[in-house]
Amino acid sequence: ITDISNGFNPITLLRDFDYGTLKQENGKRVREFEVIANSSILQLNSAITFVSWNLNGRVPGPTLRATEGDRVRIIFHNEDGHSHSIHFHGTHPEEMDGVKPVRHGKTMIYEFDVNPYGLYPYHCHIAPVTRHVSKGLYGLLIVDPKKSRPPADEMVMVIGGYDINNDEKNELYAVNGIPNFYRDHPIPIYQNQLVRLYVLNMVEYDPALTFHIHANLFRVYRSGRSLTPDEETDVITMGTAERHILEFAYPYPGRFMFHPHQDTIAEHGCMGLFNVLPT
Amino acid sequence: ITDISNGFNPITLLRDFDYGTLKQENGKRVREFEVIANSSILQLNSAITFVSWNLNGRVPGPTLRATEGDRVRIIFHNEDGHSHSIHFHGTHPEEMDGVKPVRHGKTMIYEFDVNPYGLYPYHCHIAPVTRHVSKGLYGLLIVDPKKSRPPADEMVMVIGGYDINNDEKNELYAVNGIPNFYRDHPIPIYQNQLVRLYVLNMVEYDPALTFHIHANLFRVYRSGRSLTPDEETDVITMGTAERHILEFAYPYPGRFMFHPHQDTIAEHGCMGLFNVLPT
Amino acid sequence: ITDISNGFNPITLLRDFDYGTLKQENGKRVREFEVIANSSILQLNSAITFVSWNLNGRVPGPTLRATEGDRVRIIFHNEDGHSHSIHFHGTHPEEMDGVKPVRHGKTMIYEFDVNPYGLYPYHCHIAPVTRHVSKGLYGLLIVDPKKSRPPADEMVMVIGGYDINNDEKNELYAVNGIPNFYRDHPIPIYQNQLVRLYVLNMVEYDPALTFHIHANLFRVYRSGRSLTPDEETDVITMGTAERHILEFAYPYPGRFMFHPHQDTIAEHGCMGLFNVLPT
Ligand SMILES: [Cu+2]
Ligand SMILES: [Cu+2]
Ligand SMILES: [Cu+2]
Ligand SMILES: [Cu+2]
Ligand SMILES: [Cu+2]
Ligand SMILES: [Cu+2]
Ligand code: NA
Ligand code: NA
Ligand code: NA
Ligand code: NA
Ligand code: NA
Ligand code: NA
Ligand SMILES: [Zn+2]
Ligand SMILES: [Zn+2]
Ligand SMILES: [Zn+2]
Ligand SMILES: [Zn+2]
Ligand SMILES: [Zn+2]
Ligand SMILES: [Zn+2]
Ligand SMILES: [Zn+2]
Ligand SMILES: [Zn+2]
Ligand SMILES: [Zn+2]
Repeated sequence: ITDISNGFNPITLLRDFDYGTLKQENGKRVREFEVIANSSILQLNSAITFVSWNLNGRVPGPTLRATEGDRVRIIFHNEDGHSHSIHFHGTHPEEMDGVKPVRHGKTMIYEFDVNPYGLYPYHCHIAPVTRHVSKGLYGLLIVDPKKSRPPADEMVMVIGGYDINNDEKNELYAVNGIPNFYRDHPIPIYQNQLVRLYVLNMVEYDPALTFHIHANLFRVYRSGRSLTPDEETDVITMGTAERHILEFAYPYPGRFMFHPHQDTIAEHGCMGLFNVLPT
Repeated sequence: ITDISNGFNPITLLRDFDYGTLKQENGKRVREFEVIANSSILQLNSAITFVSWNLNGRVPGPTLRATEGDRVRIIFHNEDGHSHSIHFHGTHPEEMDGVKPVRHGKTMIYEFDVNPYGLYPYHCHIAPVTRHVSKGLYGLLIVDPKKSRPPADEMVMVIGGYDINNDEKNELYAVNGIPNFYRDHPIPIYQNQLVRLYVLNMVEYDPALTFHIHANLFRVYRSGRSLTPDEETDVITMGTAERHILEFAYPYPGRFMFHPHQDTIAEHGCMGLFNVLPT
Repeated sequence: ITDISNGFNPITLLRDFDYGTLKQENGKRVREFEVIANSSILQLNSAITFVSWNLNGRVPGPTLRATEGDRVRIIFHNEDGHSHSIHFHGTHPEEMDGVKPVRHGKTMIYEFDVNPYGLYPYHCHIAPVTRHVSKGLYGLLIVDPKKSRPPADEMVMVIGGYDINNDEKNELYAVNGIPNFYRDHPIPIYQNQLVRLYVLNMVEYDPALTFHIHANLFRVYRSGRSLTPDEETDVITMGTAERHILEFAYPYPGRFMFHPHQDTIAEHGCMGLFNVLPT
């Protein structure tokens, strides 16, 4: 698999935060984002291609990022042949809820204040939602607290499933779009460096997903809604659209796996490696 | 679907609390409840009828309500042709555990003190339990703390599944008994009014259920066993018989969906709407 | 089912802790454990036998136990015809991660310091992991805090599934190896005695497992990573490899069920009883 064949590189996606275009309007800070829906063919492995429906040419869509209290304005343009929408989790008025179809060639502007800080999934909400989501129309909005979290190597993992044969079951799974990408291209991190992982489960058709890292524990900040950890463990169970901050640092250098602890899922594309570099 | 065809109205069920008949016996407060098991035919949608086994003519059964320290006495009469029982979650002696069959025409009195405050599911415990539960024999006992929780618009949602064709899979799901009822009859609530939602998962055959509300966050009081929230989010994963208090207020008027975030389940009867009225 | 036919007695397994051989090396406390992989035929019920792959002749493997800060040394010898490994959860260097095959007749020594206190599953990590785990190659390492938890009747329950017909679904389930053993041989405990239950879900193929006890509540210490409870309830949902401490005492004598609240699983081998003896 070359990175170019899919139009995006999952290694880049990991730490790619879209802060939008910053504007001041009537004394208020506004972040303006452009999001375009379209289709593309993904090479999931050497044998399997998949017609994705995606946002900004990538699966998952862009990791949007703002600070608590900001106004966000998402200019959503649908270039795809099917109608789509963006439904954001989080507080907003009815007309910004993203459950109405935006037809091919049309633009919809979603605008609302982001409050409180936390992690907010977004995804298409056109029926059948299962299909629109699993085709690739999902991503994460991070709302930072006003006082930033401590410095860390921050990265995003959005886990999705692919129903290749349209039987409402997933044949492949992927962290950030391409099955087994991080198994084949381990993620470089540094020994004793705090890692802040924003993890989101967007797998449809399966009732729950677990996530495990080897040779370490992580502290969990559930839904990113606290500044102190809720628990410390190394396996977490997440329903669809659940998302958490996981923090950890590796005391030893080396290569360490991460994967759902449902080994069936791990063995179907959801296996990755951290390459911990000595410091 | 008319309300009358099923003998109960899910809009009424939402806020229908059965406090029993209050008695003083030897200086102790006793709440006496009558619960009758029987069968009835439910019209689940325009095409599908289902023979339910139910309690007091409704699915879910009555929401029983008492205060911490009360003695409760449940006079259970089985009018149905099959043997049934009521097993209560919570602390009680062996003979009150509700695992022994009560035959057609017989009466069993379950009596115990309710301690501590919290949410306690109840359900038939006759084998196969999967079948007896999914036929409709379940409900919620709320035990209030001695010092009441703050005033709120309180409502109950019990989520169940229907195995229409006896293949040990659910073809339909429902919040409070009738699939898609609250999609077709949105639940009126008021802007900025605190809602206290008692939610219980009684779905058999599926390993876990998620619950999501649109355009808002909720505070979670797990199993109703605390007076301060355990977390704040907008999706929660619940195994069978898990139950929580969720609190939220909608800042904007309008219509907002709630549903499991397993969209397959949402699309098979488990979709509802809040109609938030301006204040 | 006689105990002898399977080479181990699940009643004994419950409270069987392997503290290893204690050594002092360069002023450090070392606990040395011997673990041998092999195959054996389990009589799961009167009709079904199963070729298990196991550790020290038992399913689950031995409950290893050490104190925070100890060095542990696991001398792993593979007598089985297939290659296996032991992957420990918890912090350790790459070469101790147990993801490399140990061939028939070979020995591998896993050695690392155990920090912090908590519960750490272990299991074979040879592909397909689903198969190697569900054949029986798993167990629990308990790391006690330096200051012991309060006195209690401590016991371990490891829940696993058996894929009898190799269709990647479980036909049977068991607490501590033998289906329905504790239904047929209730676990004696004492009224008002604190029970500290170490529970681990090692079921493959199913996305999540619930665990319920009758007629009581339990306090949950998630992953054993705290000294104060995280919540109090009577049903908990656990993904594969999730493990918790549950504490409770029965105020009434009698026989009380415990089982996953997924009644399908309970009805396929995962039903047990506490026999609470009066004091
Ligand atoms: Cu869609
Ligand atoms: Cu591991
Ligand atoms: Cu029953
Ligand atoms: Cu939503
Ligand atoms: Cu293995
Ligand atoms: Cu129970
Ligand atoms: Na929302
Ligand atoms: Na499929
Ligand atoms: Na109970
Ligand atoms: Na069915
Ligand atoms: Na590990
Ligand atoms: Na099987
Ligand atoms: Zn769409
Ligand atoms: Zn969503
Ligand atoms: Zn692993
Ligand atoms: Zn029944
Ligand atoms: Zn129950
Ligand atoms: Zn929705
Ligand atoms: Zn093995
Ligand atoms: Zn593991
Ligand atoms: Zn039970």
